[in-house]
Amino acid sequence: MGEDRLIRLISSIVKPRGHVKVGIGDDCCVLADGTVLTTDCYADGVHFVAADRPHRSHWSWMSYSSVGVRCACACLSDVVAMAARPGVLLVGLAVPKSATSSQVSQLYRGIESVCAVLGCEVAGGDIIAMDRLVLCLSATGRTDHPRLRSACRAGDSLYVTGSVGASETGRLALLHRLGARSFRDSVARHRLPMPRLRVALKLAGKVHGLIDTSDGIATDARHLAEMSRVRITIEAERLPVSDETRELCSRLRLDPVEFSLSSGEDYELLFTSSHRIPKSVNDVRVSRIGSVARGNGLYLTQSGRTRPLKLSGYDHLRGS
Amino acid sequence: MGEDRLIRLISSIVKPRGHVKVGIGDDCCVLADGTVLTTDCYADGVHFVAADRPHRSHWSWMSYSSVGVRCACACLSDVVAMAARPGVLLVGLAVPKSATSSQVSQLYRGIESVCAVLGCEVAGGDIIAMDRLVLCLSATGRTDHPRLRSACRAGDSLYVTGSVGASETGRLALLHRLGARSFRDSVARHRLPMPRLRVALKLAGKVHGLIDTSDGIATDARHLAEMSRVRITIEAERLPVSDETRELCSRLRLDPVEFSLSSGEDYELLFTSSHRIPKSVNDVRVSRIGSVARGNGLYLTQSGRTRPLKLSGYDHLRGS
Repeated sequence: MGEDRLIRLISSIVKPRGHVKVGIGDDCCVLADGTVLTTDCYADGVHFVAADRPHRSHWSWMSYSSVGVRCACACLSDVVAMAARPGVLLVGLAVPKSATSSQVSQLYRGIESVCAVLGCEVAGGDIIAMDRLVLCLSATGRTDHPRLRSACRAGDSLYVTGSVGASETGRLALLHRLGARSFRDSVARHRLPMPRLRVALKLAGKVHGLIDTSDGIATDARHLAEMSRVRITIEAERLPVSDETRELCSRLRLDPVEFSLSSGEDYELLFTSSHRIPKSVNDVRVSRIGSVARGNGLYLTQSGRTRPLKLSGYDHLRGS
Repeated sequence: MGEDRLIRLISSIVKPRGHVKVGIGDDCCVLADGTVLTTDCYADGVHFVAADRPHRSHWSWMSYSSVGVRCACACLSDVVAMAARPGVLLVGLAVPKSATSSQVSQLYRGIESVCAVLGCEVAGGDIIAMDRLVLCLSATGRTDHPRLRSACRAGDSLYVTGSVGASETGRLALLHRLGARSFRDSVARHRLPMPRLRVALKLAGKVHGLIDTSDGIATDARHLAEMSRVRITIEAERLPVSDETRELCSRLRLDPVEFSLSSGEDYELLFTSSHRIPKSVNDVRVSRIGSVARGNGLYLTQSGRTRPLKLSGYDHLRGS
């Protein structure tokens, strides 16, 4: 059972009762009073491997502090992807019985460090003892004008912040011990994928459709296209692929375009606009990588040829 | 490491940033705008045993639908325990890879059935695949006058709704196959511990300190005493122990007072007030079971003798 089918199934079961303006299917739900809300689950062995267990996973070997940092970034990225200001964070936590109070402290210090940057506040939580580490983070935010996945318009251009595939480049560089120094920027993005809050707030007035890049832009752009009922075309030559990512792909014999379209967890902003967008906002690069037209589906233009883009990124139920 | 120590540890790490009026330590946190928020985690093998796994656990053998019902009741009970009206529910879900779409449907139908009664709305969620079922539910609510654990006053009386130990009586009756018919009311409360929303809203103006009974009233009343910095005395002879619970205790050779003080998951209202409280509200029994005085600590009066009540209920990190 894939994620999309499950979302349809759930949507058919739960009934509206007047509290929700935008429900299941966007980065956050939006309540009648303008509050945005999101919840995200992360499990040891699925999204990361905690420090007391063996190597190799979707995320690389991680200290409890790094787990806290990355999970907080991932969750608050959903709030930022509504062009909302983060409010509070609730921390649902299952800890292994073997976890020490020092490890739990580290985890919370990691979460708190991200909250400090984004003006967010840990308001509460719940802790249970289990056999492995699971985090379930819920966050609130506020905006009078939430930016939705469904708001892309024919005629828009498609933009992305930062570099695509940076986080995954960093993860693979660490995993294959390729030398952290040669992949410094990517490892930094992998370790601390801080959501682009200031960019989102600054550009909010110009943005139409907006999503964060969590599952790989092939998947994330498809969400935009499907929810906005438009056709999106990505231009391969315009993708902001860093020299580090090119170097990594060369050393691991990966195709850099395919790699950057399917690599997840960058937590950059992927959005469409018909306005003039500066090439850099608050020192963050903003790249035009495609266009929006009437129709439907996701397409890739490469070497002058345009074809449907079948590639997909991470499905949280099927695995990558 | 116990729950209390961990809460102190976490409170020392996280910093306030102006969003939160009441933070870690109550049933919900309260935001500056009057929204209350809570998050709760429940795991297969800890809080219940899902239907595809063997018998015996903290909760009895349960269908996915029952898991959804009980977890939704438990989470929304925290909102009701602030005398707030539930708003939306977010469902964080880790499902075993073996789970069928029919099981996930059942789970959501269970959650939805509770939301329907309480006027609440499932607004979103997240699903990941893991090796066991874990739910992490977050709920919002609204109230202009949240009722806190810390608001008990010397001179108040202590009250509880319903019967104490009913849910655990039902669970044990099912577990030991004592005949569901002889324990009908208890089994019903175990299966559907619907939070006492209408009672909470009706009495809100008269209530001082308020908590729901989730961990056993010995533990829950201790939370009231500690957070209000008062001395609470429970009168054993006044505890509303049902005939079914007395019958169960007699058959399992348990002390009915000890049993009802330490049995969790009733999700009744435990509160203090200096006002006249009716003996029944909306057909729910309300019993005066003790008193509040200056000082500190939790005491039990039994057979004319008053002694410190050491007994405790469920600690989510230490186990029962």
